Amino acid sequence: MNPVLIAIACGALAVLYGIFTSQQVLRSSQGNQRMIEVAGAIQEGAAAYLKRQYTAIAIVGVIVAGLVFFFLGGLSAVGFVTGAILSGVAGFIGMNISVRSNVRTAEAARSSLQKGLTVAFRAGAITGMLVAGLALLAIAVFFWYLTGPAGYAPDAREVVTALTALALGASLVSIFARLGGGIFTKAADVGADLVGKVEAGIPEDDPRNPAVIADNVGDNVGDCAGMAADLFETYVVTVGITMVSIALALKGSPLLLPLMSLPLLIGGVCIITSIIGTYMVKLGKKESIMGALYKGFWTSTILAIPAIYLAAQYALGDLSQTVTTSTQSFPAINLVWTSFVGLAVTGLIVWITEYYTGTHYRPVQSIAKASQTGHGTNIIQGLAISLESTALPTLVIVGGVIVSFQLAGPLGVAFAASAMLALAGMVVALDAYGPVTDNAGGIAEMSGLEEDVRTRTDALDAVGNTTKAVTKGYAIGSAGLAALVLFGAYTADLKEFGAQIGVSANLDALFSLSNPYVIVGLLLGALLPYLFGAMGMTAVGRAGGAVVEEVRGQFRDNPGIMDGSVRPNYARTVDLVTKAAIREMILPSLLPVLAPIVVFFGISLVSGDRSQGLAAVGALLLGVIVSGLFVAISMTSGGGAWDNAKKYIEDGNYGGKGSEAHKAAVTGDTVGDPYKDTAGPAVNPMIKITNIVALLLLAALAAQGAGAAL
Amino acid sequence: MNPVLIAIACGALAVLYGIFTSQQVLRSSQGNQRMIEVAGAIQEGAAAYLKRQYTAIAIVGVIVAGLVFFFLGGLSAVGFVTGAILSGVAGFIGMNISVRSNVRTAEAARSSLQKGLTVAFRAGAITGMLVAGLALLAIAVFFWYLTGPAGYAPDAREVVTALTALALGASLVSIFARLGGGIFTKAADVGADLVGKVEAGIPEDDPRNPAVIADNVGDNVGDCAGMAADLFETYVVTVGITMVSIALALKGSPLLLPLMSLPLLIGGVCIITSIIGTYMVKLGKKESIMGALYKGFWTSTILAIPAIYLAAQYALGDLSQTVTTSTQSFPAINLVWTSFVGLAVTGLIVWITEYYTGTHYRPVQSIAKASQTGHGTNIIQGLAISLESTALPTLVIVGGVIVSFQLAGPLGVAFAASAMLALAGMVVALDAYGPVTDNAGGIAEMSGLEEDVRTRTDALDAVGNTTKAVTKGYAIGSAGLAALVLFGAYTADLKEFGAQIGVSANLDALFSLSNPYVIVGLLLGALLPYLFGAMGMTAVGRAGGAVVEEVRGQFRDNPGIMDGSVRPNYARTVDLVTKAAIREMILPSLLPVLAPIVVFFGISLVSGDRSQGLAAVGALLLGVIVSGLFVAISMTSGGGAWDNAKKYIEDGNYGGKGSEAHKAAVTGDTVGDPYKDTAGPAVNPMIKITNIVALLLLAALAAQGAGAAL
Repeated sequence: MNPVLIAIACGALAVLYGIFTSQQVLRSSQGNQRMIEVAGAIQEGAAAYLKRQYTAIAIVGVIVAGLVFFFLGGLSAVGFVTGAILSGVAGFIGMNISVRSNVRTAEAARSSLQKGLTVAFRAGAITGMLVAGLALLAIAVFFWYLTGPAGYAPDAREVVTALTALALGASLVSIFARLGGGIFTKAADVGADLVGKVEAGIPEDDPRNPAVIADNVGDNVGDCAGMAADLFETYVVTVGITMVSIALALKGSPLLLPLMSLPLLIGGVCIITSIIGTYMVKLGKKESIMGALYKGFWTSTILAIPAIYLAAQYALGDLSQTVTTSTQSFPAINLVWTSFVGLAVTGLIVWITEYYTGTHYRPVQSIAKASQTGHGTNIIQGLAISLESTALPTLVIVGGVIVSFQLAGPLGVAFAASAMLALAGMVVALDAYGPVTDNAGGIAEMSGLEEDVRTRTDALDAVGNTTKAVTKGYAIGSAGLAALVLFGAYTADLKEFGAQIGVSANLDALFSLSNPYVIVGLLLGALLPYLFGAMGMTAVGRAGGAVVEEVRGQFRDNPGIMDGSVRPNYARTVDLVTKAAIREMILPSLLPVLAPIVVFFGISLVSGDRSQGLAAVGALLLGVIVSGLFVAISMTSGGGAWDNAKKYIEDGNYGGKGSEAHKAAVTGDTVGDPYKDTAGPAVNPMIKITNIVALLLLAALAAQGAGAAL
Repeated sequence: MNPVLIAIACGALAVLYGIFTSQQVLRSSQGNQRMIEVAGAIQEGAAAYLKRQYTAIAIVGVIVAGLVFFFLGGLSAVGFVTGAILSGVAGFIGMNISVRSNVRTAEAARSSLQKGLTVAFRAGAITGMLVAGLALLAIAVFFWYLTGPAGYAPDAREVVTALTALALGASLVSIFARLGGGIFTKAADVGADLVGKVEAGIPEDDPRNPAVIADNVGDNVGDCAGMAADLFETYVVTVGITMVSIALALKGSPLLLPLMSLPLLIGGVCIITSIIGTYMVKLGKKESIMGALYKGFWTSTILAIPAIYLAAQYALGDLSQTVTTSTQSFPAINLVWTSFVGLAVTGLIVWITEYYTGTHYRPVQSIAKASQTGHGTNIIQGLAISLESTALPTLVIVGGVIVSFQLAGPLGVAFAASAMLALAGMVVALDAYGPVTDNAGGIAEMSGLEEDVRTRTDALDAVGNTTKAVTKGYAIGSAGLAALVLFGAYTADLKEFGAQIGVSANLDALFSLSNPYVIVGLLLGALLPYLFGAMGMTAVGRAGGAVVEEVRGQFRDNPGIMDGSVRPNYARTVDLVTKAAIREMILPSLLPVLAPIVVFFGISLVSGDRSQGLAAVGALLLGVIVSGLFVAISMTSGGGAWDNAKKYIEDGNYGGKGSEAHKAAVTGDTVGDPYKDTAGPAVNPMIKITNIVALLLLAALAAQGAGAAL
């Protein structure tokens, strides 16, 4: 059977798992009237946000689709729209499940911890499997259609460009979802905390706080919808561009089609190992929630080892045969080894992130300790940890690149990245579990459930903090590798198109580090994540400020809110945050889209040589990757460490809750929030979108060149 | 007359200016007994620190000198020792003047603001002129000796390597002075503030605080000795490597010697314009201190325009003649234009830094405004500004590189950097003014001088904050350009040595962005400033914690301190901070020294190809520059903005001193301190030392290759 069809079947299986598990989850009880009411408000808020966000994305999407159609043709436009829609669908369904499972988790936690865990994790797993399944289906079906019914050769230019356009569609939704969601969640959070906890002195998740529903909606739009769109995109980009790289490197080889279908098949078998993994999530004797979740993760990862081997054997047949690309030769088994490198990188990054953000280790404890001497020292130590936390992941990525390159050249790196992404289903499951438990805690609080229910949801939620941090580490590591694959495709494409688009010089000379336009490109590329981060942080500040005004206004105009006699107007706050988030996400999103285009035309004009423009864009891409990796890792790990330093103190260390150290730790947590939930994660899609736009710019230039040549 | 001799004469003039002005300053009155006593304690502390620091540097220096002698020969060892000693001398004298002028400034401020300004600025100008003068003398005399009495051709390999070794000597002292000084000043500051202001509730500079003298010593070791060593190094490196680049690019040309002497002559004439500038520092009708200082700066800069033109005409003769390097040809006048580009970059960076750190503009005011909602929002806004502040300087540097490259290729960038550094005398004067006024305020406070004296020293000091920030911007901008020149020398050297050290492949192919070892090198290079920054921040935290313990101990063991009946043991605190700073500076300093060596051997081993090792090192250098530039700018500008946001609130905005907003702003200031005074500025020498070590690694490999070939 055609491996592509097997991959399609696996993708369909993931969707079936999603449907089946949804029914399971939705069948469980929603609890009492008050709980249903609170959950209803969150669902309403989430729906309102999604509607507005998708409307905004649709407007931008239609314009971009038009441009894609005009410059790159109908197939690419179809690819773009498919990528965008399926990314949206994954986020939409995931979020809808999430806001319906939160109340059921709270209700299940009334019986036992295990039951709460089961509902919450299943809800996460639905999102996870939908992300992986829909992403795999998008590429596999599209590829199958192009090379089957549509009759294109697998290495035809149309296929390459259409797959890239598919990635662009996913990326566009992703950057909006990440940024919009990130701004929404933190603006609501900061606003709710500043007026509620600090000014009015009411506890977190108190129903009297007019921003409390917005805060709970925010958890979902950030960690569920945002992460889903992000990893959907990374998946599509990585697997898609791996296939593109194979097409460029093996033109006309008999191994071309089997090799192009291998990443799809690897994705397929890992969906099966991930589904098996989800059934391993059960509390052991020690009742360790994190242990239960890790059981699922490690099962998927370890089962992936034989599964990938068998997949390669199935797709390629004899693994000792030699693969010959345009630049080198290696035995086919090496691609299996590089896939294992991808699994190893995943495992190591998960482990390192846990070290930097877990309460059991030096980094978090050092921040907690520094909190004793005040706000300032908490922040200084947190910043030091955030800088330091970039070191080990960088070394792991460097090691992964070296080993996989030595095994199989640029394709080796691509396969390592693909294998890393093949685990996305399981990783998203861990992440999407977080907002469900976070909301469950909120609902328990707002509905006045018993103290021990709140204790159980708190336990579930505490683990959520760690899994959220760990998946962010994974998302960035994989984004870095994916971006390197994209960059490889850019150089391969440039070689291919060279003459057609008027590249005058030798490519190596152009791309040489001693070319000043390369230095300029690197500097400009490195600037993008900084500027983007600044915009994200400022946006949170501005939107958060608006929430503060709104909440203060409601308290002032309606004194009944504070004594509990009047219900605050939750919807107005949700609406305000929604509008602010959508407004604020537009400008930063344009940065990575426009940068390659502006740099290309600017440098071409200044140097009077298109080749230099393309060299500068190449350097820009690498600059964004290198700088973005550090900015993103430092922000997400630093933010996670601050968050858990607060938790560590709340667990009774250094004076516990209410102590001076705790106040300092709360400040650190506030700072870490936009770091880890807005600016940091949004850097991922930014890195990739810059690279994809550059690839499509090349394709458009080539099409134009071909047109001019006619 | 030989232009080199004119440059030597100008260098000597700067030293004479220093001697003459020192006498002027030292002749003025030291005030009353109490003032002399306080100043004496600061002088003693400073002397103790310098002694210990120079001992530590001497030990390391002797080892490195031995290595230089062994691998590169006697001339290079002499160069290394000369660079190290003169850098030390500049810092030593500057600091000695600084700790003697502080008390005289306080006394002069008793008569009038103008008199206080005169003493303080003259003290700064002494350090400034000594830095520029000694740096110029070091290169000019050494070059004159090598090409005259020693009989080497100007483009002989011995000359090139010896000039590079001279730069290494300066760099080594610089990184120790920057880091040691940075850790000292902030550890003392944080320690003094945390126990004094926060715990004991006594004001800043209160004589009862056992850390108060250490704090005042710290101002000098950080901003005076540290900055002096830093800019001495950048000066020597830039002018030295510009000459090296000329030697590599114009081998055997008749223009070789005139062109090599031109950067020296430009340095010489700008010393004259700087000296003229120092006499323009006078208060106008509006009594604007900043205005008076800027009058001096702009006079030096504007006079530099005709001066550089005349210098070029003198050195090269006909400016319309064609200069032909190994890669291109351009009219000689273009080197004058690129020098003007250097001046323009200086002016723009000064202006941008002032915008980001001055109290009159949006960035600082936005941080002050965000302080109203608490510690967390102050930090978030500060971080956003620190990220944002990298954008304009990057664009200015990118613009400078493009324009000067188009005018005169790589040499154009080198001349732009040299012209930028030619203004170092004036810029260091502005910077070294800062600690003098800061100390003057402290002495006024500790000696119980009249209220209006303190008002005047405060006014002088407030301006010092801005000038310190502005010079840091200049130091980083110039370090960035200097590092690019160093990187250019590395590639030029690699071309030159290629065959000798076994470079197998075409250089462009090696240095191509699509070489995975280049990507690995870029990632590792980008990591260095992050790791280095983390180490610096942690060191301040640790050393500051030790100070807190010590001060608490003194208060506890000796209750008489608080009621003023017993003098605290200042010396013990100074000694403790000194030891801590020296101990903490060693490890991070090794990072940039070892990184190129480890990466070279590591990648050579892994890839089995020395060429790949050298390619990775090349990429490492560029990675350090690109990433370091952003880390350093964001830290120093962000730190300056936090500092002045506090000042802005203290000026009566958003509730003024003692308000909640003020408390939040104090937190921001505490965070900004190690950012702007320890980690950020220390990145400058780190960037350059990595590059210099790589250059010397090449030279050592070549020497070894030549030896093996014998």
